Amino acid sequence: MKTVPIFSRTMRDSVSGVGEASLIRMIRTWLGPASPRSPAGIGDDCAVVRPARGRELLTVDPVVLGVHFDRRVPPRAVGSKLFKRNLSDIAAMGGRPRAAVVALAIDGRTSLSWLAEFYRGMARESIRQRVPVVGGDVTRLPGSFVATVAMTGEASGRVLTRSGSRLGDWIYVTGTLGRSLPSGHHHLFEPRLSEGAWLARRREVRAMMDVSDGLAKDLASLAPRGSEAALFGALLPRRGTASVREALCDGEDYELVFSVAARAKRAALEKAWRGAFPRTRLSCIGRFVRLGKVPPDALALEGYRGYEHLR
Amino acid sequence: MKTVPIFSRTMRDSVSGVGEASLIRMIRTWLGPASPRSPAGIGDDCAVVRPARGRELLTVDPVVLGVHFDRRVPPRAVGSKLFKRNLSDIAAMGGRPRAAVVALAIDGRTSLSWLAEFYRGMARESIRQRVPVVGGDVTRLPGSFVATVAMTGEASGRVLTRSGSRLGDWIYVTGTLGRSLPSGHHHLFEPRLSEGAWLARRREVRAMMDVSDGLAKDLASLAPRGSEAALFGALLPRRGTASVREALCDGEDYELVFSVAARAKRAALEKAWRGAFPRTRLSCIGRFVRLGKVPPDALALEGYRGYEHLR
Repeated sequence: MKTVPIFSRTMRDSVSGVGEASLIRMIRTWLGPASPRSPAGIGDDCAVVRPARGRELLTVDPVVLGVHFDRRVPPRAVGSKLFKRNLSDIAAMGGRPRAAVVALAIDGRTSLSWLAEFYRGMARESIRQRVPVVGGDVTRLPGSFVATVAMTGEASGRVLTRSGSRLGDWIYVTGTLGRSLPSGHHHLFEPRLSEGAWLARRREVRAMMDVSDGLAKDLASLAPRGSEAALFGALLPRRGTASVREALCDGEDYELVFSVAARAKRAALEKAWRGAFPRTRLSCIGRFVRLGKVPPDALALEGYRGYEHLR
Repeated sequence: MKTVPIFSRTMRDSVSGVGEASLIRMIRTWLGPASPRSPAGIGDDCAVVRPARGRELLTVDPVVLGVHFDRRVPPRAVGSKLFKRNLSDIAAMGGRPRAAVVALAIDGRTSLSWLAEFYRGMARESIRQRVPVVGGDVTRLPGSFVATVAMTGEASGRVLTRSGSRLGDWIYVTGTLGRSLPSGHHHLFEPRLSEGAWLARRREVRAMMDVSDGLAKDLASLAPRGSEAALFGALLPRRGTASVREALCDGEDYELVFSVAARAKRAALEKAWRGAFPRTRLSCIGRFVRLGKVPPDALALEGYRGYEHLR
């Protein structure tokens, strides 16, 4: 993938050199088949889409220069990451994604070559997952770059939320954890859409979320009241050379963590998983125990912190 | 309304002093009844909402420090403006708004007092229009402030798009135009939701949009192919002391502009309007004529430019 400077030195390759109307035409070209015709797509005050079947899911996630990517990340990877961050939220509820809108806040010097690659990255994910980019907005932001995607999805069956776990439930996680940034996983990851939808159909799965701020931090949202997670370091699926600390604290894993009823037939669940997703690792990493009752051989999670967005 | 500095000098009143989890709790408090409980509201990977009746409308609009507001605008007005910008887009299609998500990209020094007022401004509009804030995201953006709202709406009847006008159609506009910034209209405006829904039910209305970048620029999107607008300066409803140029070029009017079939009974339409909206001005300001056939007593619109977002 190409790495291009985000800010251009020439007027010819900068957004302020072409003006708004031309830029919007260019965006539609870069998106290609990811951009349906108006009013189902870009070009009107709102996009018009068919209503959700079952319940509607709604999420919003941005990428910010210097926070979610730096100048070393190829722009195509930035666009793809932005789209996939939102897809991962839909996956975490067991839903199907439907349509997306994109708001850009950009400097006038933003390079058209950079932006073209960024939109191609989004278009690729949009087409792969059949989630059209139906609208957006472009505005000025001197000196930085913020792109925000809002995505709508649907869940015709059960919606898996973060609440619903009970004391004694097993804790499972998909894939591997840690070292997302150095390994490039933070933009190469695959949102767990099929896995999420499959898990929502399994009655023994009680609650689910995606791991984006580090497992140690995120697990607090999944724990039932009066309980905490007892995890076993040896069971943690670590990415490459990741340490236990990195597996627990690094952000941007975009894996699913979910709880399974204490009395569930775990062997049957794990066997069915291997049949459905032979190439995706599934690990039982511990269970929810009464607050203060973490066994001595388990990890003391209070010693681990996740990603803090505002520091 | 209170004017508070957006960046705080003390750690105690800045977002980085409280951390993310506390900030999200504060946001829920500031939103109050505008924030339903999870999973219908803030607190899960996605918000879960009932599906749209009829067709779904989807839009996204931001406010950026230095672009849509400056330090003189009270934070409550900024929040209210952000919400209303999105409502105006739903109004422009004749739809009903349903739910909103808010993505914040903020500096760690952002003042909690400022932010509280900002959210109270959004909450006010949210409650008035019964459009709950169902989710969001908070991330870091050194040195600036970008808040982006994505809103979903529905249209059970007809959706009025920008296309559909024909040669000879009359051009109408609601309210008054120009001097939105100096008059405070840019944050005091009322989104034309009832008016938009009413107009969508009138068969003689063919196309509609909201005026946000200045009428001279926006009208180009409403003009049928091979035609242009012939407007009459004397018919333009001007805001206060606005000149014809200000009425045509200033942005942020958030009024509705729409086309009416050439053979429609205009007197009946105007009478019905006065019955429905006795306090909202409605003006017929011209019609669509063949390209190059603007009568000599009409305004030559090519001499007027609207707001350009990227200069």
